[in-house]
Amino acid sequence: MKNSLGAKTIVPTTPVWVVGTYDREGRPNVMTAAWGGICCSQPPCIYVSLRKATYTYNNIVERKAFTVSIPSETYTKEADCFGLTSGKTVDKFAATGLTPVKSGLVDAPYVKEFPLVIECKVLKIVEIGLHTEFIGEIMDVKADSVVLNEKKLLNIEKVNPIIWNPSGMTYHKVGKPVGQSVAIGKEI
Amino acid sequence: MKNSLGAKTIVPTTPVWVVGTYDREGRPNVMTAAWGGICCSQPPCIYVSLRKATYTYNNIVERKAFTVSIPSETYTKEADCFGLTSGKTVDKFAATGLTPVKSGLVDAPYVKEFPLVIECKVLKIVEIGLHTEFIGEIMDVKADSVVLNEKKLLNIEKVNPIIWNPSGMTYHKVGKPVGQSVAIGKEI
Repeated sequence: MKNSLGAKTIVPTTPVWVVGTYDREGRPNVMTAAWGGICCSQPPCIYVSLRKATYTYNNIVERKAFTVSIPSETYTKEADCFGLTSGKTVDKFAATGLTPVKSGLVDAPYVKEFPLVIECKVLKIVEIGLHTEFIGEIMDVKADSVVLNEKKLLNIEKVNPIIWNPSGMTYHKVGKPVGQSVAIGKEI
Repeated sequence: MKNSLGAKTIVPTTPVWVVGTYDREGRPNVMTAAWGGICCSQPPCIYVSLRKATYTYNNIVERKAFTVSIPSETYTKEADCFGLTSGKTVDKFAATGLTPVKSGLVDAPYVKEFPLVIECKVLKIVEIGLHTEFIGEIMDVKADSVVLNEKKLLNIEKVNPIIWNPSGMTYHKVGKPVGQSVAIGKEI
């Protein structure tokens, strides 16, 4: 017999994504979003869901583009900070000492110091309720050399991303591997 | 200077969600999805993105409901198995010895042995490309007593969910906590 916990968004786990945009004056802004994920393979798409009250919301509506920069564990504090203040009143790059880099592919900036970035053009905007979902087509994924293995493939241990647990409001490391997909299920 | 990896869905990390549905004849089915996440706080919503070729796709279109059962690490093999075969030809519950339970709230079954389940009614269907996104309003979240703490709140260490890394096709444990959100960012 399972216990009812109510209709809540307390599902583990979510990513910790830093969404980069330009405002009307061309000032770079970042905010941290946990309501995000991959939503299509062809075209390759991710989404972020944002409240209309965020500064980023209008930036994406106007520029039709955003980036997602993935912080490594080293930048957990900065990622949390990016979710605490608004670009309406704070220059979050200046506040944290991090560096905006203009994407060459989409009209949005990413965070230079974060090891992995995704550059997106808005494909669809879906009104859900308090949150609006921005579905972005991935134009490119870019990574620092230090997070690639010898075959130039992305190594998750080297990226060392953090994830978020909505039920405990805690950030976590990615833990040890426990199996290869499309493989261990064949043992059944 | 960052290295271009191409327009690929290789972003770490995704959840490992087992989507439960009934087919036209009322037979319970499950499939594992990694393209899923939380997408709205009010109403509380999650989504799963599925290819039209999946058996689950038609089940959700017809029943307008699905559940998500979260496997603990113990069930990594079963979760992988659920993504390898189709409900068109295989009774996945029988194949794995797991037990379908009819939800009392939505027209879909969940997996009894998994510690955490989310019951959803379809709110929106969004065509993206190869994948169709089913946005489901959360009707309830249910958990086994053994994954709750003394205050009856969900404990992620006890749930012991797995996550997936698309770039390496590996399942991972959730690692150690590295900070409290809406807290550690204030130190900056």
